[in-house]
Amino acid sequence: MAWYNKEGLKSPSLISSRIRIARNIKGVPFPHKASKDNLKEVYDICRKVYDENSYLKENFVWFDIENTPYIELQKLVEKHLISPDLTKHTAFRGAMVSSDEDICIMINEEDHIRIQVIGGGQSLKELMKIANKVDDIFASAVEYGYSDRLGYLTACPTNVGSGIRASIMVHLPLLTDSGYVNQLSSAAGRMGIAVRGMYGEGSKAEGGIYQVSNQITLGVSEEEIIKRINDFVQGLVKKEEDVRNKVYQAEPIDIEDKVWRAYGILNTARSLSSNELLGLMSNIRIGAELGIINVDSAKLNKLLVTTAPAHIAAMCDGEPTSVSRDVKRAEYIRSEVKNYDVQ
Amino acid sequence: MAWYNKEGLKSPSLISSRIRIARNIKGVPFPHKASKDNLKEVYDICRKVYDENSYLKENFVWFDIENTPYIELQKLVEKHLISPDLTKHTAFRGAMVSSDEDICIMINEEDHIRIQVIGGGQSLKELMKIANKVDDIFASAVEYGYSDRLGYLTACPTNVGSGIRASIMVHLPLLTDSGYVNQLSSAAGRMGIAVRGMYGEGSKAEGGIYQVSNQITLGVSEEEIIKRINDFVQGLVKKEEDVRNKVYQAEPIDIEDKVWRAYGILNTARSLSSNELLGLMSNIRIGAELGIINVDSAKLNKLLVTTAPAHIAAMCDGEPTSVSRDVKRAEYIRSEVKNYDVQ
Repeated sequence: MAWYNKEGLKSPSLISSRIRIARNIKGVPFPHKASKDNLKEVYDICRKVYDENSYLKENFVWFDIENTPYIELQKLVEKHLISPDLTKHTAFRGAMVSSDEDICIMINEEDHIRIQVIGGGQSLKELMKIANKVDDIFASAVEYGYSDRLGYLTACPTNVGSGIRASIMVHLPLLTDSGYVNQLSSAAGRMGIAVRGMYGEGSKAEGGIYQVSNQITLGVSEEEIIKRINDFVQGLVKKEEDVRNKVYQAEPIDIEDKVWRAYGILNTARSLSSNELLGLMSNIRIGAELGIINVDSAKLNKLLVTTAPAHIAAMCDGEPTSVSRDVKRAEYIRSEVKNYDVQ
Repeated sequence: MAWYNKEGLKSPSLISSRIRIARNIKGVPFPHKASKDNLKEVYDICRKVYDENSYLKENFVWFDIENTPYIELQKLVEKHLISPDLTKHTAFRGAMVSSDEDICIMINEEDHIRIQVIGGGQSLKELMKIANKVDDIFASAVEYGYSDRLGYLTACPTNVGSGIRASIMVHLPLLTDSGYVNQLSSAAGRMGIAVRGMYGEGSKAEGGIYQVSNQITLGVSEEEIIKRINDFVQGLVKKEEDVRNKVYQAEPIDIEDKVWRAYGILNTARSLSSNELLGLMSNIRIGAELGIINVDSAKLNKLLVTTAPAHIAAMCDGEPTSVSRDVKRAEYIRSEVKNYDVQ
């Protein structure tokens, strides 16, 4: 079962967590400097690991990026399993995706091997264990580029060291409205923490959703990275909660009105753009946090993933237009929301 | 039962009809030129008619405007039973309102006696019969100001003649959006027809609702007045229907989206201003005309009357603010709309 279908997450503000480990094969140039032969070599090595490891072979699907339909790749991007970058240069790029869609190993993205593990809520510690398990499989089959002084060697200097990036996707609509998140970004940067939009570097924070991740891996242990991100995100969530409670106490009707109208529109609209939907779901999430509306955050997380453009396009008959996609999105949302018991 | 509670009206576009007869008592100056003694004389004469006529006495409530709470008067205005003008100079002003709230006789408004009869849909002929019956009661008790050459004498020259004004309240949202109604107003004027906002002279056309009425009564029979208004309104309704069907055929989803979102918001909003509500109800009415949503027009007509500001204020505990009124309006709308079976 995909992470976004698992109910019982504690806080709707904490959407998901992700661990990414960057590794490279010793003696082979990094992908951005690699020849076709180098890329093929890496691809073949990883394919061999996959073929010879029963855990991988039984639980993961191998995607040859070049031969995967565009819409399928976009769906993987929308699930945060692969990066948009992996879909740009496709030759000898690969991905192994677990059947639960919680783990993905990208081949020849920025680094030769990138292991990504995703989970609901704030779950970095558990995800780290899973990532390490996958890392061990590759470590026992290939020799990683490694320096005793620096640690694991990576294509981009910011990943040198443990090669670990820990990130949490978090919903901060009131801190967005108040301008706090904008002010925060540079301060966070000085602490080695990046606050970015939902789809990573350069993407906008649609619906008040941010990815918070570490920018430094050199000389910091994995425990320390996870602790820093957890603490930082907890601080943000606490601050968001304070502002939310204050605003709610001051103008309860304003918030209740927004939350319930959003629910009303999800139930009835015949056309919904992705952006409008993110705004409406943001209001429902605020309502869930405040106990105004009873919606399990797993439901919202599922919608967040399954209503993104490529997911909706895949539900359309034939080639979708932006108009038919918005109609399909509204239709799908109505069919989901009508089963909610929100009281 | 009030007109707006009677189901089974044919077209949601045709909201209500009204007949008004202006009469004055011979030898007494018109109200705007009358002394206090003159006004008292008229008031007392009419009260005597009321007291001595069993039909009036049993079926009508007498309101002494000066001693009627402001909010009650506003409710009568919102029901189109009395005019805003009647509430401005209150001394020796009166109103007899039938228990069904379909008939009102105003005393010392612009004329000494103004008989108003209101009904659902397009029903001028039936209303004219009722108005004539009430007129006969007064005609047999007092001598009207009358000229063989001109007909009934009235305070304003535009009412001289039959003293009859026939009006139909009609919903023309698409002709409003297209600018047609604006262009129409001056052309209608040349035909002796006025197209005004919902609350008569000088009021805006909220929610695409207009009052269409005759401006001339001199030398025109009551049958002719009614025929002219009926024909003119039928032409407007036909034109509105043509535009509506054309727009719906071109962009069905746009219209369905607006209609169903309006329904969703009525079901969920926690605060609704009178103006927003008129816009939403306008969309529902369009949907009812097009068969998109199943709402009897009586339901919409009831909401139109009962959600106006004074009606809502009367539902509030204590002195309402504009905020608490919008909250109460939303609460009342939810309680009404949740019982609709719209499929």
